[in-house]
Parts: sequence; structure tokens; C-alpha cells
Amino acid sequence: MIVVMKQGATQEQIDHMIQRVEQFGLRSHVIYGETRTVIAAIGEKRDEHRNSLESGPGVAEVVPILAPYKVASREVKPDPTTVRAGSLAVGDSYLGMIAGPCSVESEEQTVSAAKAVKAAGATGLRGGAFKPRTSPYSFQGMKEDGLKILATARQETGLAVVTEVVADTDVDLVARYADVLQIGARNMQNYRLLEAVGKQGTPVLLKRGASATMDELLLAAEYILNAGNPNVMLCERGIRTFESHVRFTLNLTSVPYLHDRTHLPVVIDPSHGTGHTNLVTRMAAAAVAAGADGLIVEVHPDPETAQSDGYQSLTFDQFDELMQLCNKVADAVGKKIVPNKE
Amino acid sequence: MIVVMKQGATQEQIDHMIQRVEQFGLRSHVIYGETRTVIAAIGEKRDEHRNSLESGPGVAEVVPILAPYKVASREVKPDPTTVRAGSLAVGDSYLGMIAGPCSVESEEQTVSAAKAVKAAGATGLRGGAFKPRTSPYSFQGMKEDGLKILATARQETGLAVVTEVVADTDVDLVARYADVLQIGARNMQNYRLLEAVGKQGTPVLLKRGASATMDELLLAAEYILNAGNPNVMLCERGIRTFESHVRFTLNLTSVPYLHDRTHLPVVIDPSHGTGHTNLVTRMAAAAVAAGADGLIVEVHPDPETAQSDGYQSLTFDQFDELMQLCNKVADAVGKKIVPNKE
Amino acid sequence: MIVVMKQGATQEQIDHMIQRVEQFGLRSHVIYGETRTVIAAIGEKRDEHRNSLESGPGVAEVVPILAPYKVASREVKPDPTTVRAGSLAVGDSYLGMIAGPCSVESEEQTVSAAKAVKAAGATGLRGGAFKPRTSPYSFQGMKEDGLKILATARQETGLAVVTEVVADTDVDLVARYADVLQIGARNMQNYRLLEAVGKQGTPVLLKRGASATMDELLLAAEYILNAGNPNVMLCERGIRTFESHVRFTLNLTSVPYLHDRTHLPVVIDPSHGTGHTNLVTRMAAAAVAAGADGLIVEVHPDPETAQSDGYQSLTFDQFDELMQLCNKVADAVGKKIVPNKE
Amino acid sequence: MIVVMKQGATQEQIDHMIQRVEQFGLRSHVIYGETRTVIAAIGEKRDEHRNSLESGPGVAEVVPILAPYKVASREVKPDPTTVRAGSLAVGDSYLGMIAGPCSVESEEQTVSAAKAVKAAGATGLRGGAFKPRTSPYSFQGMKEDGLKILATARQETGLAVVTEVVADTDVDLVARYADVLQIGARNMQNYRLLEAVGKQGTPVLLKRGASATMDELLLAAEYILNAGNPNVMLCERGIRTFESHVRFTLNLTSVPYLHDRTHLPVVIDPSHGTGHTNLVTRMAAAAVAAGADGLIVEVHPDPETAQSDGYQSLTFDQFDELMQLCNKVADAVGKKIVPNKE
Repeated sequence: MIVVMKQGATQEQIDHMIQRVEQFGLRSHVIYGETRTVIAAIGEKRDEHRNSLESGPGVAEVVPILAPYKVASREVKPDPTTVRAGSLAVGDSYLGMIAGPCSVESEEQTVSAAKAVKAAGATGLRGGAFKPRTSPYSFQGMKEDGLKILATARQETGLAVVTEVVADTDVDLVARYADVLQIGARNMQNYRLLEAVGKQGTPVLLKRGASATMDELLLAAEYILNAGNPNVMLCERGIRTFESHVRFTLNLTSVPYLHDRTHLPVVIDPSHGTGHTNLVTRMAAAAVAAGADGLIVEVHPDPETAQSDGYQSLTFDQFDELMQLCNKVADAVGKKIVPNKE
Repeated sequence: MIVVMKQGATQEQIDHMIQRVEQFGLRSHVIYGETRTVIAAIGEKRDEHRNSLESGPGVAEVVPILAPYKVASREVKPDPTTVRAGSLAVGDSYLGMIAGPCSVESEEQTVSAAKAVKAAGATGLRGGAFKPRTSPYSFQGMKEDGLKILATARQETGLAVVTEVVADTDVDLVARYADVLQIGARNMQNYRLLEAVGKQGTPVLLKRGASATMDELLLAAEYILNAGNPNVMLCERGIRTFESHVRFTLNLTSVPYLHDRTHLPVVIDPSHGTGHTNLVTRMAAAAVAAGADGLIVEVHPDPETAQSDGYQSLTFDQFDELMQLCNKVADAVGKKIVPNKE
Repeated sequence: MIVVMKQGATQEQIDHMIQRVEQFGLRSHVIYGETRTVIAAIGEKRDEHRNSLESGPGVAEVVPILAPYKVASREVKPDPTTVRAGSLAVGDSYLGMIAGPCSVESEEQTVSAAKAVKAAGATGLRGGAFKPRTSPYSFQGMKEDGLKILATARQETGLAVVTEVVADTDVDLVARYADVLQIGARNMQNYRLLEAVGKQGTPVLLKRGASATMDELLLAAEYILNAGNPNVMLCERGIRTFESHVRFTLNLTSVPYLHDRTHLPVVIDPSHGTGHTNLVTRMAAAAVAAGADGLIVEVHPDPETAQSDGYQSLTFDQFDELMQLCNKVADAVGKKIVPNKE
Repeated sequence: MIVVMKQGATQEQIDHMIQRVEQFGLRSHVIYGETRTVIAAIGEKRDEHRNSLESGPGVAEVVPILAPYKVASREVKPDPTTVRAGSLAVGDSYLGMIAGPCSVESEEQTVSAAKAVKAAGATGLRGGAFKPRTSPYSFQGMKEDGLKILATARQETGLAVVTEVVADTDVDLVARYADVLQIGARNMQNYRLLEAVGKQGTPVLLKRGASATMDELLLAAEYILNAGNPNVMLCERGIRTFESHVRFTLNLTSVPYLHDRTHLPVVIDPSHGTGHTNLVTRMAAAAVAAGADGLIVEVHPDPETAQSDGYQSLTFDQFDELMQLCNKVADAVGKKIVPNKE
């Protein structure tokens, strides 16, 4: 890291900071510029001790040089990771297509959705049994009954099940039914939960928090990787900005950016990422063109009566159109939507 | 709520939506404007079913009229709530002053900080034993050993202890030592945790998530209130914006806004809210002038060597100056910084 | 619009607001709900008088129903507009490809870039002669000499010239050389300039301000349309958000959203929209998949020595790759990159 | 500045970058770290050439060390600047209180407002004659007739007139009537206008753009200072964020931050900064406590009938309360609201 001293910092202050840097076990290297002095600290570790250097006398700011994550980094593992879970393959040349209802509401609703998305070409099934809801007065999910319905839907269609887990104490239960454990955006920095999914083997879909930076997302992944689970998929689902014509602002630039920094695959959620049915299909196609390794899309037999997220769910016909468009774009950019052949 | 139809919506679509509204047990009232038709739905409940109406045929948008929270609302309880916990009183005319280190690092560090902030006039002690950290490689807190140190500091100074709880399974443990349970910004929408602190009696300091709206904050409080705990303090600690010269953007407008909408007291965190030591004191004074019911401030015997947040921690002398300025401003706006006399 | 009264508003307040609404020449329609009363104002005009209603006694808020723009609206003109300017066609099935240097620096630099982008398949040439720069110490452009070089480049390649105009008093001068007048993001709400380009016939590329809402963008277009110039292209170039790994956050959702609301074509700027060379090509492809009607891309013979924006400029080879990828994606989504045949 | 090379950058790439740095007339200093090499460039100038270094082979990023502004910097002029204009003094220990209607609508409206705010203790009069409006269908101001009314109000009350200028070609006209030229938020980066107000002597109130960074604001001031006008006041009026319960997010942290970086005085606009009448007074008091050098507040004889901004304007009585509260807080923090004694 680089410790930038204020203009007019005294030699005593500079000497003090050199000493501080060396107390952290780093080598220091001082550069006297025309108006400011900077101290380069060599041997930087990935911790936050550096932050306290900012409190030092005469210090203007501290600039990190190394990325704060390690195992997630492309510098450590240059080859892209492909995550496989049942029928699903996500990463490298594989484009995983996960679709299904926001919430599991009934066996009929979920199984019919599973069959429809399978027929259209999806390779994974999404569906929420434990639902984190903004209001305590909203439908909170069918819980274990919902998980059983998802297992039935898998049996009927062969689709891998992707479903959310919201508490570390639920991980074992959910992992008994799920092929992929989803960590929702609100829980991206629930470190107890991250550690819990890291300690078991089921693949994880980690959603970006609505105001998380890329470094924070990769550090959340690092919690899981560091706990022993290498099967992590990152999911961009839109960020909170001043824009009010969309529920969230979907920054597809995350795809090439993350591909540059990490070997982990990147999935896009155009349903939450836009929040409006009429915007989903085009953004799904755009995500594929941007190089996404997977999509996760909300599909409901009758969006108008959905218990949650009806405003952003596709009908079966709309999802069929989405798949046709995405297949063409996938061809154009050299990605394959095929079930995992394990 | 108001269902706004698209220009050119057919009578059939309008009739369908009237029927949908009535299926929710609401009365409908149709208004034919010059270019658009709107359907007012009377008897609106506080749930999210309305959202799925947006998927209806010919619907442009759905506009809610009622606030989504209820128990937290000033319409339900017009008088301001004062939360009392040991030495601390927060709300109405009382200005609670909570100060102490970011992390509990040792008994000496914590007790000396407690004594110093008490001497300067603080009425509560902050200190983290369970630390949610962005990086898995950062110091994660002293856990129960830290709680014991906080209890010692309380014994030595009489200051009420405010400390964070990060998981529902830790609530009982932390509540044995703490006078106030803090829910951190990252956990504002950890509903399992909100329910757990709601089911017990210790007062709660609920921090706003870095990208939470006011409605989301109040709905998070509603989870706690709804579970049976009426002693909730809201805490504004800055939001994530494009501004990079501060760690977070501290919107003090939250104070008068929340006072208008809710009876719950509002605490300001100028340490996280700015992220830089040299900005803390002035923003503390501004918070008091804005009408805040409390402040929570990071103070450390030696910020330069702090395990966390040194860059935003005050020295004892700096905190003393802060208290002097805040006392003057409190006088000017009619607030009192006094220990709870229970 | 809908005037929502506060809970507990008196009948006198309600009567006052009914009277106010009728003073604006609107019909009022009162709906008494269970906890609140709302007044629908029928015959709403597109002005901001409504805002002052919010100051009325007992008023909680005022909700507009109509979009504030008119001539730009798809409700007024359902068919998509194709803007044609020299070699360039943008809109409907035409995908205009505009490329070239950020700044005109010399004849050699500009003409070589024009030839290279033409060879790769571009249908328009960009290049700045008047440069609005954040710092007064930065290169401010070659001004009229730059315009002359652009005219030479057009002569050599046949490419339509797109160049920025920064002041109303320059419009005539720039229009003598340019095929398309670009309004930069910083000037999106420079109304004097918008009126000036609206009063003449040269097509306009209107860039979205970095924090402009969609309504504000469309109202800026409305200034131009209203002044008599129907040839307006909207350009999304990224918004300012908390994200710091990109210079701006490029929300491609603007493409399907705007296509839904307006007949005007939508151009994407993946260079400013990302701010990093290595992200441009993928986001260009994504923009085409999202349905964009045009792209505007920075290309420089030697980005490392560019006077401005080198960090986001492509080399000739990189642009060639971009064109190959975009051509494939355009085929997949049914768009054509062809020179205007007028 | 610091050129950070990618991990694995070759010696050839490093040598190339050293050469590039030296071509800019800078001295280079290379530091070989454990995983990365950085090149310190000594003698950095305040221009943007550095940006193009990011395009160099093997370069990860370029980190500036110097602030990009110079004349505005506190390092160049350590003493705070006091701007004086007629009755108004802003800066150092002086708190200027500017109040009046958003738009000049009539002589009666403006003169009565001027008298009321004078009586309450204001030291400057605001009022818009040239109004930049989001919609072309909104009231655009009375133009020169409005300026004449402002001059009359000054004659009647002795208050200095602060009014907006929206185009470089209007500067002479507006300066004939105004004591302070206001540059609105939308025009903060209208460089032609900045240069025009910089070339004449009337003091300038420069409003921060809704998404401008602090550096961009200070560089905009630098345009004016650099053109020869030293009398610049900066004005924070709220930024655009995801918050929708306020029109803009008013970050009062700008006050101590700017006081640390620049000698220029800082004025706060709590009217635009909140957008709601009921939030203005408290935020005005908070601004004073934060150390603001001035306030600019919208006051209207009858906000409900105002042509613009009625929803955020105070009545005369409300402004009187604001002044009483601000006077007390000003006393507490050592600021004086007194007319300029020149």
C-alpha cells in the first residue's frame, strides 16, 4: 500500500509512519515528491490493519495496491471454474438457464412451472421455500413443505433445484433437498450464513447485495471458498441507484469485469434486476451477449395471482420467447445452453 | 391504492381489474380521466398482494396510498417513545450519548475508554464483541470474552452497554451482558435475527442498511415491534452513494423525516456516517441541531493502533471537544444529555 | 393527478383542496377511504403547477398520473422514428455504428481513425472539436480547426460526422460542418442550448445526464422537439452510482424501457458507459442484444497517447473485433448495420 | 501519481511505462513489491494526461496523489475567504442568510417577501428571473422584468440580490442588476458560463451539481477563479441518491470536508436539499451547527400558489421560526448573522 502524507508533513511524522509500517512487518520505501511525500509499504497483506494507518499524524490517505480477496482471484486460479449441480452446468462455455416461480405456492404451481421451463430449454429450477420479505405482513414461504414440493418437481423433470437458505441453522435442512443453495442479496454479508454454506459441499449461488461493491461481493465469496466450498457462482441482480423506473439498476458490466478478476462464474438475474416483466427478455439476451455464464428468471403459471414478485414474472409463453432469443444470442457469442452430462 | 390503466386500456381490461381488486376484499371506485382510467381500491391492507396487480392486463402502474408499516407509525402512536436502558435515555427531550471503541480489544482498552467517555459526559458505552467484517482475514472480535469485558466496564462506570448481535442463535448470550442489542447495518434485513430480538425484552438499536429506504427501515423495526419488543431505537449511519470522499453519505434529513412518520427515537452515528475522524465532531453537532435523540460515536485510546475503524475513531480529547460542542447545541435546541434517573 | 390527504385531514381542508384543484381548471373527484381521503384531479395538464398543491393544508402527497412529456411519447406517435444523417441510419431495424476518437487532435489522427472504423463497418464518425473538460487545465479541443478536420475526414470516407456543441452561440458554426450535433451529458439540461439545436434542422444526439431520470431525459428531448426539430436520438452513456470499478454504471435497461415509452431511437455509448477499454466490446454486444438502435464508440490510433479518454478508447484492431461480435449479435436480434441509402 | 502494474507485468512493459512517465517531464521511481511493481511519477502536474497512462501495456491502474484543483485549494491559501456583496457577508465567522422566493412572480410578491425576510434577520435576497425548468411547459421566469423587480426590492430593503444566470450571453445583463450571480446545479459544468462569470467582478454562488463529486465542484470553482474572479461561494444543495422520501439527499458533511480542502465559503440550500417544507428548518439549523458559512432558503408569501417550488417554500412565519432557531445554534457554534458593514 501507499501512505500519502499531507503537504507540509514534518520529518518527524514521516519517521513515525515509517516505523508504523515496519511494525506491521512491511518494508517501507519513501519517495519525496515536489509537494508531498509518500511511503510505499512493501509486502502488504490482505487485512484491514492498513486502515488504522490513516489515523497517523500527518497522513492524508492510504491507498491499497493489492485486491483484498485471494482465493477468488483470477491471479491465483487463471482458469474459469465451471460449477455443476445435477442437470446444471454454469461457467466457461456453459450457460446455465435457471427458471421457475419466485415462491413455491403449491405442488401444482411448481410442477407445472418446472415442466414448462424444462420444455422451453431451462437446465435448472428456481423456487423459494424460505422467503425473506421486506414486510412482516407478507407471505413468508412454505418452508419445509415447499422444499418437498421442489424435490417432487425435480423428480418429475430432472431439473436441478436452486433454492434460498436464510439462516445458518437451516443449511442442513435446505441442503437435503436442494442442488444449489442460494444466498439472497439481503444476506450477502451475513457472515455466519456464508461460513455455514462454506462448510458443506452443495454448490452456492451468491447474490450481490443491492449496494455491495465488487470487492465486497468477492470477499463474501471468499468467506465461502475459505471455509472449504469451491463451488460458488456469483449472481448480479441489480443495484440500488437513483433510478426509479426500474426496481434495481442492472449493471451488466459486472460480467466482463468479474470475468477479468475472478475465475468464478457469473449469473444474471434479469427479473430482480429490472423488476418489470416487459424488460426481462431483452435484458436476458443482453446478459448472454455480455458473456454471462447463467441466467436465473422468474416464471409463473399466472403472474397476476403470484404470492410474490408477480410484476416481474414471465408467463410460460414469455419464457419460451426468452429462450428462443437467448439461444440465438448464445450461438452468436459461443455459449451453449445444454444440460450437464455428468 | 390506485391502479393506473394504460392509455387505450379496453373496458374488458378495466372490468377485469375491478374484479381483481374486489377479490382482495377491497372496494373499487373507477375514475375515467381524459386520457387514462384509474381504479381506486378502498380498504387497502398492508401487504404486498397489490404488487401482483401490476401484472394485470392493461395496467400501467399501481400506486400505494398507505404507508406499509403500522405499529411503528406516528399515526398509530402520536407520542414520541423514550427508550430507557440502564444509564441511557433516548427519545423525546432526552439525548442519549453512546461512545466507546469499535471493537473490544482488551480490558484495559475498553475500561479506559469507558471511563474517559463517562468523564466527558457520555451516558452509554458502545463496544463490539461480535464483529461482522467485510473480509474473512480481518479481526472478528473477542466474542464472549469481549462481552465479559463490557460487563466489567459497566461495573466500573455505571454506563449502559450497547453491543452488536449478529445471529439469532447468539441473542440469549449477548442479552445476558448487554443493556442494548445493536443490529448492524448489514443485518437490517436479517429477519430471523429481527424476530429473535423482538421476542425478548432488551432494547434494540436498529441500524439502517446502507441502501435501505425509510420504508424498509421502518418495516424492519416493525418486525421487532410486531414480535413483542416495543423498545426500538432507529439509527441512521449513512447510505451508499456515488460520493467517495466519505465512506458513507450521512443524511441528517432522516431525523426530521422519521420524527414526522414514527414515534421511535432516532440515533445518529457520525463515525460510520462519515468515515473520517476530522468530520465526526461537526456532524455530531449537526445531528443534535437536526433533532437527533441520540448519538453513537467511536472513541479509542489510540486510534492509530485500533483493530478496526481507527480512521474514524476519536481520541479521548477529541471526544471531550465533541461533548462540549454538542452540549451547547443541545441547549440551543432544547435537548438534555442526562443519565437516565430510573 | 391524485391528491392524497393526511390521515385526520379535516373536511375543511378537503374542501379547500377541491377548490384548489378546480382553480387549475380540473375536475375533482373525491374518494373517502377507510383511513385516508384522496382527491382525483381529472384533466391533468403537463405542467408543474401540481407541485404547489403539496403545500396545501392537510396534504400528504401529490401523485401524477400522466407522463410529463408529450411529443416524445409513444402514445402520441406509436411508430418508431428512424433518424437519418448522411451515411447514418439510426432507429427501427437500423443499427447505426458511430466510432472515432474522443478528441480531434490532428488531421492524420482523425483521418486514419475514420478510415479504420469505416473499413471495420462503422456508418458514422465521432470526434470532439469543442471539449467540455472537468479541469480548466485539460486540453479543451481544437475548436473550428477540429471541425475542418472532421469535414476532411468525411470527404475521405463518406462517413457522417457526429460532433459536440457546447453553447447555443456555437450552434450555427458547428452545424456548418456536422451531420449530427451531439449534446453532451453535462449539457442535457442546458435549456438555452436545447432550444438552439431545436430551432435548426440538423439531427441531434442527446446524451443522458449522469444523474438524469428517464423523465428528465425525455423532457430534455421534448425541449428540442417542441422547438421544431424532430430528429432526436437519445443516448444512454451511464449513470453515476456508488460503483467505483467503472467510471459510470451503464444501465442497458434504458433501451427496452425507452422503446416502450418513446418513438425516438436509443444509442448506447459503451466507452463512457464503462470507462475501461477491456469492458467496451462486451457491453457493445450486450447493447445490441438489448435492442439498441446505435452505438457510439471511442477509437484511437494510439490510445496511450490520446489527449483525452485514452483509458476507454479501442485500438483499430479492438474495434474490428467489436464490429465482428456486434454483427453476429445484430443478426441474432434482427438488426442491420448498413449505411443509409438515401 | 502512482502507476500500478498488473501482477506478471514484464520488465519490458515496466521499462515502457518508465519511459512514458519521463516523456511527461516527470521523474520516475520504481518499487518492486512482492507481487506487483509500482512506478511513482514525481513532479505530477494538474492535468489529465495521466489518464492515458492507464492504456499502457501491463498497467493495472493509475492513482493520482495531488488534488486536481490548485487556486481553490487550502494548501495554496490557508486563510478562509470571506465574500462580501452589498449587505451580505459569507465566510469565516460570518453566516450569510439569503432568503426569498424561488421565482420572481410580481413586484408585490417579491417586495413583500424581501421585507419579511429582512425583518426576520436575513442579510440577502434570493429570487429567480431566469428559471431553468425541467419541462418546456413550465413557467420559465420573468427574465429582465424580474431583474427589475429584484432591483426594486433591494431599494426597498437594502438586501443584496442573489439571482441565477443561465447563459454566458446573459452575464452582463444579469450583473447589471445582481449583487451575486448564482450558477445553478444544472449548469455547474457549463464551462462557457463559468468562464464568463469568472471574467467579471460580481461575486458568484456556485451550486454543486446533483451528481458532482467534491473534486468536480472544486474544479468548477477553479474555472471561475482561474478566469480572474476570486469571489466564489460554494453551495451544497443535495445530491441524487436512491432516497425517494426527499427530492435530494443533503450531505452536510460537505461543510467540514470543504472547509478542510478549500478556503472558499460554503453555503447550504436546505430547500432544494430536502424538497419538503417540513424538513427545511431543522436542516437549516443542522447546517449552521455543521459550520456552514451561509444558508439560502426559499420563502414565499403563499407557497400554495407559487409558480415553482411551492412544496419546499416556507411562509413568512415559518422563516421567522427558522431564523430564531438558527440564531441560537449560530451562537452555540460561534457564528454571526450580521449584515456586511462595508
